Amino acid sequence: MKILVTGAGGMIGRKLVERLAADKALGGKAITGMTLVDVTESPIPDGCPQGTKSLVLDYSERGVATTLMQERPDVIFHLAAIVSGDAEANFEKGYKINFNGTWALFEAVRLEGEQSPYKPRFVFASTLAVFGPPFPDPITDDFALTPTTSYGTQKAMTELMLADYSRKGYLDGVGVRLPTICIRPGKPNKAASSFFSGILREPLAGVEAPLPVGDDVRHWFASPRSAVGFFINAATIDTATLGVRRSMTMPGVSATVGEQIEALRKAAGDKAVALIKRVDDPFVATIVKGWAGRYAPALATKMGFKAEKNFDEIIKVYQEDEMGK
Amino acid sequence: MKILVTGAGGMIGRKLVERLAADKALGGKAITGMTLVDVTESPIPDGCPQGTKSLVLDYSERGVATTLMQERPDVIFHLAAIVSGDAEANFEKGYKINFNGTWALFEAVRLEGEQSPYKPRFVFASTLAVFGPPFPDPITDDFALTPTTSYGTQKAMTELMLADYSRKGYLDGVGVRLPTICIRPGKPNKAASSFFSGILREPLAGVEAPLPVGDDVRHWFASPRSAVGFFINAATIDTATLGVRRSMTMPGVSATVGEQIEALRKAAGDKAVALIKRVDDPFVATIVKGWAGRYAPALATKMGFKAEKNFDEIIKVYQEDEMGK
Repeated sequence: MKILVTGAGGMIGRKLVERLAADKALGGKAITGMTLVDVTESPIPDGCPQGTKSLVLDYSERGVATTLMQERPDVIFHLAAIVSGDAEANFEKGYKINFNGTWALFEAVRLEGEQSPYKPRFVFASTLAVFGPPFPDPITDDFALTPTTSYGTQKAMTELMLADYSRKGYLDGVGVRLPTICIRPGKPNKAASSFFSGILREPLAGVEAPLPVGDDVRHWFASPRSAVGFFINAATIDTATLGVRRSMTMPGVSATVGEQIEALRKAAGDKAVALIKRVDDPFVATIVKGWAGRYAPALATKMGFKAEKNFDEIIKVYQEDEMGK
Repeated sequence: MKILVTGAGGMIGRKLVERLAADKALGGKAITGMTLVDVTESPIPDGCPQGTKSLVLDYSERGVATTLMQERPDVIFHLAAIVSGDAEANFEKGYKINFNGTWALFEAVRLEGEQSPYKPRFVFASTLAVFGPPFPDPITDDFALTPTTSYGTQKAMTELMLADYSRKGYLDGVGVRLPTICIRPGKPNKAASSFFSGILREPLAGVEAPLPVGDDVRHWFASPRSAVGFFINAATIDTATLGVRRSMTMPGVSATVGEQIEALRKAAGDKAVALIKRVDDPFVATIVKGWAGRYAPALATKMGFKAEKNFDEIIKVYQEDEMGK
């Protein structure tokens, strides 16, 4: 079993590769080699099979997709993308990388299959940004694709194409719409969602953290460990039961900021909570208002995708995986 | 006011151009010229302004979109496409023409606007094939894009892109999801839906017509005249109230085959109905089973799109427009 991972140098990509290296198998089949692709060097963790290599490549550049598929990976984890803010600021670049680049991967698979039979599992990292307001509460699997960003549009278009390539038998696609990942390790970033991790991560380390929204803001979360679990499950489920709908909203924890804070209090006490500093940031507050707080991920749940049950669990995962507790 | 029509040689395209030529204006502004594009010669009807030309061009060929937009049409009616069966049989061709070709038109508009401000109304002919089973009855505006054909996928992807280009202010898009057009003038064709027109058109002309499905099959219809009305309305509505959702399911008549037949009986008597011959065609029957029979086109209705009320009206339109009655 050969595996290709794009975006292998990113936060989730690295964790996915570490998990695959530790498992040494996927869906009961031994992993014989992994090709890790990113625009920067992807670390090769201990335990990877010998035939593992890290390639510094932009998957969307001409010819790259064809070269990657000539190795005929059995499973492709396509995590690489440019992020929402970048795609919004750079219209052409967003379509070129997020949409055309991914289409080039699909096409390379299809054309490889024209040489001799080839139909890999293609796991695609999608996003809840395929949905935009106004939306119902919760957002169900049947709700319309209504992105309000170029990033969400590119992902939604790719989801449709993934389904069509799967229906035609050119590949075996599964699209995974990730919740907001929390608690992200590392430093705060410029994403509008950064504070959702920051208000837990920083106080757990004894550091102050800004909170730019009210306690009643509700959002949809899963841990990095769950995200890796989603990708592994997407690679191994029986897609025969999926029919033509190949992209699924992942399960998650629906929680308000207030509930996040109470979970922090339970885990680390009032002293930790006191490190959360209320700040005014109307820009972030307005963006966050456009996000949904609840989903009804019926299909993914039926297909065995699992997230945490509450924020106590999400904090525990962070303490175990990032703080060595 | 300059107008560009692609697919101007097709059945609806010709009727649209005739209507524009008769109206001599669109949204209260005089039409000064029309550019009619199709892969075959588009007829130029009487009454067209002097600056009207018919170009035999494939809009999806390299460079064509740029050339067309250099004339800076105020309204673009994009009706050209390859049909469902062709797109299904010829995968690459379908994406190249229906998707990439339309994207090239969007891009040509955007790049023209980079020279100096330009933001035309872009009316896009979409399809109810953006929806596939299983679906609710009726299908609402909020229902997921779930195409089960490459044609429907290409149209759904284009709808998403039309919304994104509109949101970014590069063009002012309106997508029109057409019902099955009935009664189509002319001869039966190979479309699975051909019989819906045939069982009325042929008996009205005293000719036998095959019926390959049962009386209880329900479908969604509008006349060619209504289709033209949809496009005119799409060109003139105030899109400020639409928000990010730019493509709409058009209103129509939900009717069973049995109701079609009763309308025929009212219009032309038992003798006409007797010309309908029951035939067995499991292939067509299976395809038709995958189609929805009812929609709830709330947004389009609010935006002033209008179809017939029942099949009596649809037959009357055919008699007036095609039989000179």
